[in-house]
Amino acid sequence: MQKVSQRLQDLPISAVRKLTPYAVAAKKRGVRVYHLNIGDPDIKTPRVMLNVLKNFKLETIRYAQSSGEPELIKALLYYYHKLGFTKINSENILVTVGGSEAVVMSFFATCNPGDEVLIFEPFYSNYSVCAKFTGVKLISIPTSIENGFHLPDRKEIEKKITKKTKGILYCSPNNPTGAVYFRREIQMLVDIVKKHKFFLISDEVYREFVFDGERCTSVLDFLDQIPNQIILLDSLSKRYSLCGGRIGILMSLNKEILSGVTKIAQGRLSAGLVDQIMASKLISVPASYTKNVIKEYKTRRDLIYKGLLKIPGVFCKKPEGAFYMMVSLPVKNAEDFAIFLLEKFRLNNETVMLAPGAGFYSSKVISNEVRIAYVLNTNDLKKALKIIDMGLKAYKE
Amino acid sequence: MQKVSQRLQDLPISAVRKLTPYAVAAKKRGVRVYHLNIGDPDIKTPRVMLNVLKNFKLETIRYAQSSGEPELIKALLYYYHKLGFTKINSENILVTVGGSEAVVMSFFATCNPGDEVLIFEPFYSNYSVCAKFTGVKLISIPTSIENGFHLPDRKEIEKKITKKTKGILYCSPNNPTGAVYFRREIQMLVDIVKKHKFFLISDEVYREFVFDGERCTSVLDFLDQIPNQIILLDSLSKRYSLCGGRIGILMSLNKEILSGVTKIAQGRLSAGLVDQIMASKLISVPASYTKNVIKEYKTRRDLIYKGLLKIPGVFCKKPEGAFYMMVSLPVKNAEDFAIFLLEKFRLNNETVMLAPGAGFYSSKVISNEVRIAYVLNTNDLKKALKIIDMGLKAYKE
Repeated sequence: MQKVSQRLQDLPISAVRKLTPYAVAAKKRGVRVYHLNIGDPDIKTPRVMLNVLKNFKLETIRYAQSSGEPELIKALLYYYHKLGFTKINSENILVTVGGSEAVVMSFFATCNPGDEVLIFEPFYSNYSVCAKFTGVKLISIPTSIENGFHLPDRKEIEKKITKKTKGILYCSPNNPTGAVYFRREIQMLVDIVKKHKFFLISDEVYREFVFDGERCTSVLDFLDQIPNQIILLDSLSKRYSLCGGRIGILMSLNKEILSGVTKIAQGRLSAGLVDQIMASKLISVPASYTKNVIKEYKTRRDLIYKGLLKIPGVFCKKPEGAFYMMVSLPVKNAEDFAIFLLEKFRLNNETVMLAPGAGFYSSKVISNEVRIAYVLNTNDLKKALKIIDMGLKAYKE
Repeated sequence: MQKVSQRLQDLPISAVRKLTPYAVAAKKRGVRVYHLNIGDPDIKTPRVMLNVLKNFKLETIRYAQSSGEPELIKALLYYYHKLGFTKINSENILVTVGGSEAVVMSFFATCNPGDEVLIFEPFYSNYSVCAKFTGVKLISIPTSIENGFHLPDRKEIEKKITKKTKGILYCSPNNPTGAVYFRREIQMLVDIVKKHKFFLISDEVYREFVFDGERCTSVLDFLDQIPNQIILLDSLSKRYSLCGGRIGILMSLNKEILSGVTKIAQGRLSAGLVDQIMASKLISVPASYTKNVIKEYKTRRDLIYKGLLKIPGVFCKKPEGAFYMMVSLPVKNAEDFAIFLLEKFRLNNETVMLAPGAGFYSSKVISNEVRIAYVLNTNDLKKALKIIDMGLKAYKE
């Protein structure tokens, strides 16, 4: 009998969901599990978006436009223009099925099979799936917990460039580290791609989630310097707590990129119609919504950061943005500890699910780090911290 | 400057949307365009589904489950079991982002790059995009308008099999031809894949759209014979007029296939949450809904078939199912005629958009056929027929 394809077998398992069977088993045994493993926010979607559902008038859920519903594209232009990026036109925007599809399209558009994209490690584990799916090789460049996972020197990056390098992909504010790259770091990346004439792919789905500075530096600040080399990946999932709406964006001034990915988009017909109509209300979301969301995450960030530092042997830097952080634990193999929490540990019949850090590295199979997504309310976060603290003590025994 | 990837440049343009710029230009000039080019039904979505929107209670549009919302999977099981396919369990079903994603996944799962899938020509043009996207080579086997595009002899199929053949993909009821394959034809395909030990991929998104017989033969009728070789592609788009809901299904009893495509699904996180909740109401759609839809399409089919035969030089067979037909026109190049209709022809300031047939063939660049989707109401269809009739006369002058 014909086997399934080798490439199907080679696909990695999502680092975020790898331990799901253990969590399911724990829940079956009646245990409450706090999910720190996945960035699925508990924040409410803006009322003005939810109202679209209540007031829905169309009687046929027809296909949406392949490139995105005109109403949504107009709303997105309003959003980018308000941020100061007035060079962007409707022809530069493709609405994608979540940010994930934008990642896949950017790999397909820039690379032939076997081509390489540079990436800073640790990185969002689903990038690996998207790369394997498109036959692209991710070449990882290490960053370290000691300096808050900021970018290495230019020469460390340039020494990884080969003839097969077609781009650099970076994410700021960063998932999984929480780092927000400084302007000078993005400028360095811009200089590199300008010199080597390949693409700079910037994942900015956490753009607003910056806690201590003003705003994060966007790759769009550099449109004048490298107009045809920038591909922006964006998503409304986190910004408007709209993860299940699957609304992403691929933006580029490069016409060949846009006309190419539009052919992919036509091949899959459209993104969801209802979700796009809902998303187009972003122009009516009050500024206070975003402010309150950021404030809430800042509170959570401060709470979990302080709480973690109090646990003996735990090390982390204060995350600057997004709602993730990589945390070094006083264990050899954090995955083994994460399984221990789900399988064996209980505190008042509750436990915590963590995402093992190794899944965010392509160079490591074992790591003492975990990624934490602080997407729980402060009460639950406090309980989760206690569980990690007590869990570590129990694990050592 | 780095060019975009060769594979991006090589992607075909959707046959269905290729002439869209001409239609847009015509509309700008104030012309009404009847769209016979695309299968976007005008039928209303079931009320019970639309009511989900009105009564939506969740306040956070969270990610759905990667494999599909449990509620929707339960509803799908109900649907398949009711059809008599009681072997199917929830572990055999993956909810996809429209049928298109199921096509892409089936190619990725069965083929490594360069591997081959057999397909009967003319075929749904987006299969070509999905194949190019996954590096799969579609090997086309001709069928002809004279016998209503039914399958050729077994030896015609088997002579196309090479070491790289990993499956046969077929669609019944067929888009673009309207053919509904007989049980003996499907049995022949089952026998072939059984002998040669590869996969049988069946696209049954038009399952209910059969006008003259009882029901179409499903590949699921053969689960006992080749349990691990069947991949079913399905979609709720046409069945419930839910095209913009992007709810597709990949179904297989083969565990390696399912666990593999689930990894892809996890990499793209989930299909839409609202759409899945809406779709799960399929269990409450009254049987009269489907009956009325089929009745309406049968009326349209009869009208357009009779109308076309009255036009001098036009040839077609009566379509047996779906809502498409391939029609031979008395012109050399049907694409040129389709452009003529959009650019130059008017009848009471109205015209028709057709999908040039060549886009549904991989072996032809020019064809005298067009694909017609009879998704307009009978009044509009009558006008469209008149326009084609008069347009052909004007075109000849």
